[in-house]
Amino acid sequence: MEDKLEAFQDFYPDDYSHCYGCGRLNEHGMQIKSYWDGEESVCRIHPRDYYTGGMKHIVYGGLIASLIDCHAAGTAAAAKIKELGQEMTRETMPRFVTANLNVNFKAPTPIGAEIELRGKVLEIKGRKVTIGVDLIAEGVVCAEGQALMIQVKETL
Amino acid sequence: MEDKLEAFQDFYPDDYSHCYGCGRLNEHGMQIKSYWDGEESVCRIHPRDYYTGGMKHIVYGGLIASLIDCHAAGTAAAAKIKELGQEMTRETMPRFVTANLNVNFKAPTPIGAEIELRGKVLEIKGRKVTIGVDLIAEGVVCAEGQALMIQVKETL
Repeated sequence: MEDKLEAFQDFYPDDYSHCYGCGRLNEHGMQIKSYWDGEESVCRIHPRDYYTGGMKHIVYGGLIASLIDCHAAGTAAAAKIKELGQEMTRETMPRFVTANLNVNFKAPTPIGAEIELRGKVLEIKGRKVTIGVDLIAEGVVCAEGQALMIQVKETL
Repeated sequence: MEDKLEAFQDFYPDDYSHCYGCGRLNEHGMQIKSYWDGEESVCRIHPRDYYTGGMKHIVYGGLIASLIDCHAAGTAAAAKIKELGQEMTRETMPRFVTANLNVNFKAPTPIGAEIELRGKVLEIKGRKVTIGVDLIAEGVVCAEGQALMIQVKETL
């Protein structure tokens, strides 16, 4: 089957596609997919029903942090390649790692609902890219995250 | 089989024990266990081998955030009950939720290694408890986290 290259994560090179959150080659993982939606990036996912928090009807905080982290990493890579005026390909897609992740939990995230992540590029400064991410479920911003992503040097 | 009540998480009431990170009733989850070690709290875990990051030999950032969050929640509950001069039981154990989680990623966390989480109580101010957590693998502090945990009102 031919690959359908569309999402940011589909352009990650094979040896960088093993992440449990966003790697298309991690068969156990969530394989989240992020896309541009105008100036913002968007990712939609229905988390597995066992990703519960302390109580059964809410999502656990670690998943929220994970989704924000992976969506921010993808958005940083896509934003950097856009800044360079290049197209996303598996050869050109830059690799980013997280230096800092900060999450404010605003409201419980309900289990069973579709989660939407909306990313904004807050700053691009050389290899440092700062992304803000809102996590939304049932119309409510349940968490707000910010991630400082660093481009891995080998890709420069 | 009789329950062996030892870890902080073993004292969470049943209806608060479904967390994918630390709930003893989540059969799919990690069921982390945290204990006092003097003034600090400690948790040791061998993450599953598919919790990889982008590259196969490192742990994904979301897991690191998850472990820090859950260990901080347990430490907050144990610290609060200690401050109250009470023993941990399933009836007395207070419930905490995360208001803010901040993680600095300092070094890659190797897959296959035992991870040690060491928690410190930074502040207890009424229902607000701030916990600092170091995540250590192979003798290296790979991540430093801080969590602001809020005691759920129903348990006051």
